[in-house]
Amino acid sequence: MDGIFITVEGPDGSGKTTALQEIVKQLPAFTNQVIFSTREPGGSPIAEKIRDLILDTAHTAMDPRTEALLYAASRRQHLVEKILPALAKGNLVLCDRFVDSSLAYQGYARNIGEKGIYQVNEFATDGIQPDLTLFIDIEAEVGLERIQKGGDSRENNRLDQETLAFHKKVREGYLELARKYPQRIVTINGQQSPEAVLKDCLEAIVLRFFK
Amino acid sequence: MDGIFITVEGPDGSGKTTALQEIVKQLPAFTNQVIFSTREPGGSPIAEKIRDLILDTAHTAMDPRTEALLYAASRRQHLVEKILPALAKGNLVLCDRFVDSSLAYQGYARNIGEKGIYQVNEFATDGIQPDLTLFIDIEAEVGLERIQKGGDSRENNRLDQETLAFHKKVREGYLELARKYPQRIVTINGQQSPEAVLKDCLEAIVLRFFK
Repeated sequence: MDGIFITVEGPDGSGKTTALQEIVKQLPAFTNQVIFSTREPGGSPIAEKIRDLILDTAHTAMDPRTEALLYAASRRQHLVEKILPALAKGNLVLCDRFVDSSLAYQGYARNIGEKGIYQVNEFATDGIQPDLTLFIDIEAEVGLERIQKGGDSRENNRLDQETLAFHKKVREGYLELARKYPQRIVTINGQQSPEAVLKDCLEAIVLRFFK
Repeated sequence: MDGIFITVEGPDGSGKTTALQEIVKQLPAFTNQVIFSTREPGGSPIAEKIRDLILDTAHTAMDPRTEALLYAASRRQHLVEKILPALAKGNLVLCDRFVDSSLAYQGYARNIGEKGIYQVNEFATDGIQPDLTLFIDIEAEVGLERIQKGGDSRENNRLDQETLAFHKKVREGYLELARKYPQRIVTINGQQSPEAVLKDCLEAIVLRFFK
């Protein structure tokens, strides 16, 4: 595999999606690699259908483990159809959320347990890991305030129903992951200005791959 | 959990579905327990929808691991909605196929590997295992011949496309599982008359739980 696989992670409201869009614009100043930006389900028809099933509000009876398995299935299909072909072509792949999201949200915050979520996702990814993960860290209160102000409108609906306690657990999950995988995960202070967040993200990528 | 959880397993054409129907008829002679007979997706609306996704022939791009994760998701939901409530009521649950099918078909015959399928299904079942598994064993050639004669019409379509080599691998997978879990899995000779198969099945159940 000749490409570079970078994921961007963080709690809702962390500004990671905005940061990712800016990274895509700025990175060509540092590399000639083709940049492929994606997020699950990423236009894979099968992965999209799996997502529709998860998000169908009629499915109130859906067990948390069923949901975790469906997320992993959608991830697998997106990986095989989109990410791996882009990496095989030597692209730099930037993916908005990946396995760490399932670990933080489902493993930690929903209490399914990290080990089970890890094993299921290891199966889904066949052990493929990002070369680098940018974790945009933000306190739960600040992230929630941003969401409520509508600064992150796409993520608004799903989140309104969650409590502050839940968001705190998500952040704790991410912090734990960053401690556990210091080689792979770079923590970025998401409470800075968007410009400063972008600068730190670019620096982390350039230092790792293009210095 | 006060109920009894029994699964019936075997390659296609082994006659396991017929045997299961007869067991349901005959068992009341040996026990007063309510008998709950089921097979995945077993009438769970979510599990049904997941199955529809797997079986949609338009999904030729579906990766084998995506498929395995979807089977596990459907299994989880059926377990939570149907099997566990029946066991909690003290029923004797008879299930046509369970985790062993995924291990034999996907782990062994499709070469995804037993370990991964095992881990994903351990997550799906939260470690819940059948108290007893009746494995109806049959040589691949005999099973295929029965299918082609239409003796097992429900399983006909899915199977026509598979080769004899595949069916041999499925059987080898089951035999390996029976060697590995001799306490749980009782092997029944499926090449006897249906009456003899039924007799052996009933004997195994009665010996284990009602003698």
